[in-house]
Amino acid sequence: MGKDRLAAFSDGVIAIIITMMVLELKVPHGADCAALKSLAPSLVAYVLSFVYLAIYWNNHHHMLHTVTRVDGLILWANSHLLFWLSLIPAATAWMGENFLSPLPTAIYGATLLMPAIAYFLLERAIVHQQGRDSVLASAIGRDLKGKISPLLYAAAIVLAFVSPWLSIALYVLVAVMWLIPDRRIERVLREG
Amino acid sequence: MGKDRLAAFSDGVIAIIITMMVLELKVPHGADCAALKSLAPSLVAYVLSFVYLAIYWNNHHHMLHTVTRVDGLILWANSHLLFWLSLIPAATAWMGENFLSPLPTAIYGATLLMPAIAYFLLERAIVHQQGRDSVLASAIGRDLKGKISPLLYAAAIVLAFVSPWLSIALYVLVAVMWLIPDRRIERVLREG
Amino acid sequence: MGKDRLAAFSDGVIAIIITMMVLELKVPHGADCAALKSLAPSLVAYVLSFVYLAIYWNNHHHMLHTVTRVDGLILWANSHLLFWLSLIPAATAWMGENFLSPLPTAIYGATLLMPAIAYFLLERAIVHQQGRDSVLASAIGRDLKGKISPLLYAAAIVLAFVSPWLSIALYVLVAVMWLIPDRRIERVLREG
Amino acid sequence: MGKDRLAAFSDGVIAIIITMMVLELKVPHGADCAALKSLAPSLVAYVLSFVYLAIYWNNHHHMLHTVTRVDGLILWANSHLLFWLSLIPAATAWMGENFLSPLPTAIYGATLLMPAIAYFLLERAIVHQQGRDSVLASAIGRDLKGKISPLLYAAAIVLAFVSPWLSIALYVLVAVMWLIPDRRIERVLREG
Repeated sequence: MGKDRLAAFSDGVIAIIITMMVLELKVPHGADCAALKSLAPSLVAYVLSFVYLAIYWNNHHHMLHTVTRVDGLILWANSHLLFWLSLIPAATAWMGENFLSPLPTAIYGATLLMPAIAYFLLERAIVHQQGRDSVLASAIGRDLKGKISPLLYAAAIVLAFVSPWLSIALYVLVAVMWLIPDRRIERVLREG
Repeated sequence: MGKDRLAAFSDGVIAIIITMMVLELKVPHGADCAALKSLAPSLVAYVLSFVYLAIYWNNHHHMLHTVTRVDGLILWANSHLLFWLSLIPAATAWMGENFLSPLPTAIYGATLLMPAIAYFLLERAIVHQQGRDSVLASAIGRDLKGKISPLLYAAAIVLAFVSPWLSIALYVLVAVMWLIPDRRIERVLREG
Repeated sequence: MGKDRLAAFSDGVIAIIITMMVLELKVPHGADCAALKSLAPSLVAYVLSFVYLAIYWNNHHHMLHTVTRVDGLILWANSHLLFWLSLIPAATAWMGENFLSPLPTAIYGATLLMPAIAYFLLERAIVHQQGRDSVLASAIGRDLKGKISPLLYAAAIVLAFVSPWLSIALYVLVAVMWLIPDRRIERVLREG
Repeated sequence: MGKDRLAAFSDGVIAIIITMMVLELKVPHGADCAALKSLAPSLVAYVLSFVYLAIYWNNHHHMLHTVTRVDGLILWANSHLLFWLSLIPAATAWMGENFLSPLPTAIYGATLLMPAIAYFLLERAIVHQQGRDSVLASAIGRDLKGKISPLLYAAAIVLAFVSPWLSIALYVLVAVMWLIPDRRIERVLREG
């Protein structure tokens, strides 16, 4: 019961974040190709963030499937995740308007790093409530992707001050890495 | 289960896109008829896009009825559709502010063409998962409307550089063509 | 089934409209009383529209309770209602920024009149589907409120060019008239 | 039935308010540290309001669990609460843009005080409907937190004209006080 409402609320917030982001795509003044081209960097940033938020929704979807009871810790770990996700549109807009500037590119990485940490904490909160033998605990296993991603984000943040292109390449790489939904959970659920 | 949450998330995103579009109706400065008249092209563009998004919601609604199990491919085909739909408000605002300019009219057509393709791909993903004998597969049949619409959008995109009025007439034509919800699926569902 | 999704989608759209309206409350520049006072007319307009949208949500809620099956006509009558409701934020902002100007006050009345008509049409579509002996048909009865409201809106639209204060008084009057949820439906539902 | 839709609608509105607030985080012009630093006060205000809205969602979630039937009074008390919550983003933005100015700090306190009162009234409306012996009535008990909070808000509003820092400290204090979800209700629910 509480779990369904938690899932619905989270879905709602992520749906709003994902679509609100498009409001930052400021419609260009003028009706010619130059106006359209000036939108290109914002559009690239938008696509990247859209994919990230879709990945979060996707994996969050799978993770909540394994929850049987919601407690206060899970509620707050979830709100914490939503908070960091809610900063992505602002960072996306800033990076899009100042494409390849070091600081905005680094800050964008920070707004990817923080929800990754928050997602990890939510995972812990669920395992803590469900027990070490739960579906989620065994599905995560060593969780290589979950451990590598924050390192890659951190590297990208530092690299932004050397070459913003490299940072963006790393952001794309991590997104691609996660694009496949978490088969581990699906498999364990089927086997269990 | 997963299907319900997919439907709810998609509904949420479409509901937000459809209502967010109205934020692009910039309230005119001044309180006279001239201020109101300056809003007319934006309002026309808004009505057209509202109808298109309502059609998508409607048909998406019918299509998901036929799904029994959601897999990763369907999830991503659905996110892909939502991505293209999310660009409609920006294109609507650009066309409204530059009414009858060739490029914005053509771009608007492109933001209609892309979700049409994405919808087709989602249809394929569902048929792929449900099998060739599924309700959806037999309901779609030859799918004349689905095949003609992209051609009409493509024609409208080219025509925008000749006569934007013609393009808009084509956009209206396709909308009218789709206004009737997909009786084919309803009929097959009733018979099956 | 379809009915639940229709209700959820409508709720979503109304929830977004109602909260999006607050984005039109432009935060005043400056931090003194004058800045705050300049917000007063927009705030009055916001409260009025909030109440109207809450009334629509409320009555829509009651009306959908009586539906047993959703058909294409109901779907489109519902989208039609949502379209007109979606114009309320823009009209509210325009009236708030040009308080007591005749044209914005009249246009605001028009954006109240149109959803009233759309609501009436939705009611007809439901009765048409459910039959003359349905719960809704007997609950509506003569429907005095539903018939008087459009007349009062129309009067307010005309009066706006004489005295905008009178129009606003009429808008408030109709809102107060509807504030009590539709006991008729509740009563018939309990008796049936 | 009605209760589920009420919960869903309220969740929707709160989800939109919470995420819409981030739109007020105006992306800084320029790509350097100064631009980022200028965002700091708005970010602080945003975090504070995010926590408050999450607390309201959380406690509202628990409170609605105890409702068995929704009547007109509860519906309107709930809309009344949502109205006051909807003003928080505007007040947050104003306080963020005029950090430590007395009037915006006081007004922010007012937009916290009003939903606190509205929440209290909603509690009364539920107890009135459920009876003095209901789960909620016994769970609330003396409700110390609920009685102290409005006093602290009121004190903060007055103190804003002496020292805005003190007011903000009080706002943080009350938030911390509420961060723990309402164990009282959880406990009584478990025992009952």
